[in-house]
Amino acid sequence: MPVQPRTPPGVLELLPPQQLAFQHMLDTIRRGFERFGFLPVETPVFELSDILLTKTGGETEKQVYFVQSTGALKQADAGKLPELALRFDLTVPLARYVAEHEAELNFPFRRYQIQRVYRGERNQQGRYREFYQCDIDVIGKDTLPLAYDAEIPAVIHGIFRELAFGPFTIYINSRKLLRGLLESLEFAADEHLHVLHEIDRIGKQHPSDIQARLADGPSIMAGGSDPAKQHEHVQRLFGLLVEQGRDSRGTLEALRRFDRPSPLLAEGIAELQQVYDGTLALGVPDRALQINLAIVRGLDYYTGTIYETMLDEHPRLGSICSGGRYDNLAGHYTRSKLPGVGISIGATRLFSQLVKMNLIGQVRGAVAHALVLQVDAALAAECAGMAAELRAAGLNVEVYGGDDKLGKQLKYADRSQIPLAVLYGSREKDAGIVKLKDLRATAATREHDVPRGELAARVKQLVGEIQ
Amino acid sequence: MPVQPRTPPGVLELLPPQQLAFQHMLDTIRRGFERFGFLPVETPVFELSDILLTKTGGETEKQVYFVQSTGALKQADAGKLPELALRFDLTVPLARYVAEHEAELNFPFRRYQIQRVYRGERNQQGRYREFYQCDIDVIGKDTLPLAYDAEIPAVIHGIFRELAFGPFTIYINSRKLLRGLLESLEFAADEHLHVLHEIDRIGKQHPSDIQARLADGPSIMAGGSDPAKQHEHVQRLFGLLVEQGRDSRGTLEALRRFDRPSPLLAEGIAELQQVYDGTLALGVPDRALQINLAIVRGLDYYTGTIYETMLDEHPRLGSICSGGRYDNLAGHYTRSKLPGVGISIGATRLFSQLVKMNLIGQVRGAVAHALVLQVDAALAAECAGMAAELRAAGLNVEVYGGDDKLGKQLKYADRSQIPLAVLYGSREKDAGIVKLKDLRATAATREHDVPRGELAARVKQLVGEIQ
Repeated sequence: MPVQPRTPPGVLELLPPQQLAFQHMLDTIRRGFERFGFLPVETPVFELSDILLTKTGGETEKQVYFVQSTGALKQADAGKLPELALRFDLTVPLARYVAEHEAELNFPFRRYQIQRVYRGERNQQGRYREFYQCDIDVIGKDTLPLAYDAEIPAVIHGIFRELAFGPFTIYINSRKLLRGLLESLEFAADEHLHVLHEIDRIGKQHPSDIQARLADGPSIMAGGSDPAKQHEHVQRLFGLLVEQGRDSRGTLEALRRFDRPSPLLAEGIAELQQVYDGTLALGVPDRALQINLAIVRGLDYYTGTIYETMLDEHPRLGSICSGGRYDNLAGHYTRSKLPGVGISIGATRLFSQLVKMNLIGQVRGAVAHALVLQVDAALAAECAGMAAELRAAGLNVEVYGGDDKLGKQLKYADRSQIPLAVLYGSREKDAGIVKLKDLRATAATREHDVPRGELAARVKQLVGEIQ
Repeated sequence: MPVQPRTPPGVLELLPPQQLAFQHMLDTIRRGFERFGFLPVETPVFELSDILLTKTGGETEKQVYFVQSTGALKQADAGKLPELALRFDLTVPLARYVAEHEAELNFPFRRYQIQRVYRGERNQQGRYREFYQCDIDVIGKDTLPLAYDAEIPAVIHGIFRELAFGPFTIYINSRKLLRGLLESLEFAADEHLHVLHEIDRIGKQHPSDIQARLADGPSIMAGGSDPAKQHEHVQRLFGLLVEQGRDSRGTLEALRRFDRPSPLLAEGIAELQQVYDGTLALGVPDRALQINLAIVRGLDYYTGTIYETMLDEHPRLGSICSGGRYDNLAGHYTRSKLPGVGISIGATRLFSQLVKMNLIGQVRGAVAHALVLQVDAALAAECAGMAAELRAAGLNVEVYGGDDKLGKQLKYADRSQIPLAVLYGSREKDAGIVKLKDLRATAATREHDVPRGELAARVKQLVGEIQ
């Protein structure tokens, strides 16, 4: 009895037509990264466990997949972690890579990385254990100018414009600005993370509920409890966060007019302004870029600019592409200070959601542009030569193998969604022509008799390879 | 104290310029596969252990990497294998994939797959624990015409011609023919594998040593010991295997003239002839294709045509691309009979060997064609607009961030191997021009003053994007 063939839960395996659409997406992302000069990096799927788990992060460690060869498994010491573990993101491998190859890299180091990552999560709807991340980062040595923060949304804009999933907005904010705001509103420093955490819920919960919870909750004020002040300052904070419109310049203006200025707030405002202006200068239209003070993006890693991206017509998807600026990439592996800025597209999750919503059409069903049929066994070698000729002209071509009836051959072409069939029998040979059958539903003309010498040019024309 | 950043042994991690060369190789392979209409498939890095290890193969199982989440690791039952294991090749995942999706695939099913595989081998020079395989296979349902066997060398020829690693030869043979030969020479059926194993050593050991060992060794004859006959028949076998020249037609002729004909041998000869002729008809020149009766290719999986590929000037590399025809792909997972033919390029090993031998030059050092320098902070927005314009024209462009001295900016461009620098200061602005600095050692002219309106066209021209 054969074993039931199946994949483990939590992976996305695609049939060829979907795989073609997914590859088109990854190719577009890669081309978009390269358009800005980012360099490719690939790292091994596994890292040494002691490298991967330097951050003794509870949640992360629980999700790690460990890897052991059969030999290691047999000798496993229950108290010791296995030597290898699968990467759970592309940031830790980047940190290790940059620290390891520091002397050989040219800073600011711009890298892109499109690889799968692994998380041993319990299987939930829409949660993947294996999924693609498409990351870019620019890493500076000691410092990294803000101009690089302005470039990130321009890269993302180019890619999502080309992917054509509909209108989208890249939201930017600044952690520095937020911290300045919390400081000048006199919230206690050790309550900032708590307040940011609550702000992060805007969009998931009603803002007035969050506001009430903060205003009426335990004291969060510097200098001790003062319920009236807390109430007022939370109200002022939410006034800024929630009442901002789509007008980014207006938001910056309101912040500048804020009557509790502080040096940190002023710096945050100036930086966000610079990033905003810089991104527009790179050709991103202002309808696709918006300052949004309510985005927070995690709670400790990012220190400056932060990014989220939403499909305007599908807010339920949440952010489809997020990132930000951080102070130091690789403190675990090197004493060099390596500030950076980056962003990540979770391609697997995005793709599967868009497919479910019918927002990803099929790019093409087949790789082949044409299928050369076998009409007459005596002409098989000539047909093979024709295929070689078409391939040399840059076309993707299949040759039907074997001597099945023509109807069966055409059915194969049709099921395979190959747009054109090439027929060459003794009748065509005598007439010095080749018959092309256009199999697409949209074809205006079904059959074309083409002079033998014009075959490649006419096939190219029909499949639209030539403008 | 930071942790020493390092990768596990047995992986190939590349610096960006090498990664660019490697990607160029993978892209060329992919394009070559698509030229023949093969469809992309990607499978998860891990399979369920019971799926992956259905063949209770001792050697394979010893090399498997098992995967466990932290939770699974804690609950591990010493007697039970972990649930997941990393794929060790692309053939078992293909078998599982085809069996699982059989109803949705269109046969003959042509797939390519370019992914990494994992083997928990002891680390040896040149042995990788993680490496790319680039596979194609055509899978038939019940039957698969020989025409597909003829196509495989044509695909490989197109790819290696484009990769330009120097002259190469694709060797073909037939397991059926070999079995026919052993049969008609009256070697005992249960000694065939042993004899093939010895033949497989030709190229590694001196043929006369192998011949002597077989001729003078224990009886391998059907019908009982007959030392004189054994001596003679081994001699006749080696005469055919070793004395064949580079002339494939001559080899086939010699086989046809063989005075101990048998139906199996005749079938093997006819099939190999058909594959040979079919490959030539697809445009492969006969200097790149050779029938070689001494290639055996493993010992049980393949049943018909077999392939090896050698770089003519580097025989020590051994076969850089091998495969063959098999009777039934997925007997472990389905009752359907699925014959197939395929071939595999071990890209990681090949790349690393060619780099060591200086046979892979650097394709390009940078992704970016041009770097826009910051000459005058007041013109930063205009420079950003110029970059956007060049990108819209299809060029890959970096913008230097920050206000470092021009010398430092140029040094960055130079170290990054970016071919062109774009300078635009107030002097250029007043004159309505942009200054292009060609940073390549080969540049005939170092500096070009280009009218502002011709910027994109001139940059394209300089980097050779336009013919």
